[in-house]
Amino acid sequence: MTTNFYAPPSAIRAGRVVLPEEEARHLRTVLRGEAGDDMTVVDGDGGWYRARIDHVGPDQVVGTITDERDNVGEPDMDVTVALGILKKRSRFETFVEKAVELGARRVVPLRTRRTERDAIREERLRNVMVAAMKQCRRSRLPALAAPQSIEPLLAGDVGETRLVCHAGEESVPIQQAAADTRQRASALVLVGPEGGFAPPEVEAAVEAEATPVSLGARRLRAETAGIAALHAVITAQGN
Amino acid sequence: MTTNFYAPPSAIRAGRVVLPEEEARHLRTVLRGEAGDDMTVVDGDGGWYRARIDHVGPDQVVGTITDERDNVGEPDMDVTVALGILKKRSRFETFVEKAVELGARRVVPLRTRRTERDAIREERLRNVMVAAMKQCRRSRLPALAAPQSIEPLLAGDVGETRLVCHAGEESVPIQQAAADTRQRASALVLVGPEGGFAPPEVEAAVEAEATPVSLGARRLRAETAGIAALHAVITAQGN
Repeated sequence: MTTNFYAPPSAIRAGRVVLPEEEARHLRTVLRGEAGDDMTVVDGDGGWYRARIDHVGPDQVVGTITDERDNVGEPDMDVTVALGILKKRSRFETFVEKAVELGARRVVPLRTRRTERDAIREERLRNVMVAAMKQCRRSRLPALAAPQSIEPLLAGDVGETRLVCHAGEESVPIQQAAADTRQRASALVLVGPEGGFAPPEVEAAVEAEATPVSLGARRLRAETAGIAALHAVITAQGN
Repeated sequence: MTTNFYAPPSAIRAGRVVLPEEEARHLRTVLRGEAGDDMTVVDGDGGWYRARIDHVGPDQVVGTITDERDNVGEPDMDVTVALGILKKRSRFETFVEKAVELGARRVVPLRTRRTERDAIREERLRNVMVAAMKQCRRSRLPALAAPQSIEPLLAGDVGETRLVCHAGEESVPIQQAAADTRQRASALVLVGPEGGFAPPEVEAAVEAEATPVSLGARRLRAETAGIAALHAVITAQGN
């Protein structure tokens, strides 16, 4: 089976893995997995396992671990991406899915001056993230932060590269800014909601050492900007 | 009004523009446009116009052109992007929307060995494209080709850069391949459906001078791969 399964670290013990109910059902009813088959399991915490299936029950699958690795599919750089909460939930979900595929380590739903929605559907987004993690063959489940404003993200020491998506006169093309991040271990990418950040928000970010970056000549939707910026930053690291 | 309106070239004559019914209704009922307001109109064929509104009727808006430009919001490079028709229509629609935002000049729905669907919803996709063109402030409506296989795309003289998304051993990182396209006037970006291209398809593309490109260490969904590749190619041109 080429699909990855997800089991939390607590389900992996003494050389054996027990799939959670939903994963077990998927393996049995959709993929027709049987005892003797091999499966790949990730624990969302960087753990990656190959396992031989010992037992397939109605709601339970147990396997014996045959190979074990760390951080499979993970980029070297620890990238946090923060996007303004969007009016249309499906667009925010699309973004979250893509952020996981592209390798973000943390997703922050932002409350900004121009966001018109305060809350996210946390459980639904987590399900999207787990599915994306398995699909793209990562081993870490990115963190989903609580909705917040940009201030806490910008507080404290600047040990990371900070980029704020904003088409202004002083903005640097994203490819160039991404190339400049190469020596850093972590990055923060800030993207506004529909309509972008308000000028004081951009100023606050720049004051906190964020580089304003432009993403091309067209006006991208917020989620497209986030996807494009994230891909440029992570692939500039060569992974 | 910061929104762009769309009127086909036939609706622009003798210094005046007449908005089509649906656009006119949107201007009147949603944006509350009135005589005396300024509006921006694009004709989908590279024409960009500022106009002063003379008259707002129930289904008609007429304006006098006050400024006129060519190819506003258009990249220099003529990029065709071809994506395998996806099982889930909403994912293909998301891709088409993003392809317009990012600056593609032509979108080709591909029939490949691994596509499980033959047809697209042409009218619906055109509506998505028109909305995206207005939203991102382009002046050209990209062409939507009829569903086809890769062979006709690869036939003929190679005047363009050709890239085929495929994670193989000989693949070049997309950023590098995109930088190499700088001297060319046009490009073709090929992306498979779920599961990617079959080996003979990749071989046919390589034989027709396509460079296989990789998009990073994770397995991206087809539409994500298309978005990332397109953005890399077009921003490498500096626009």
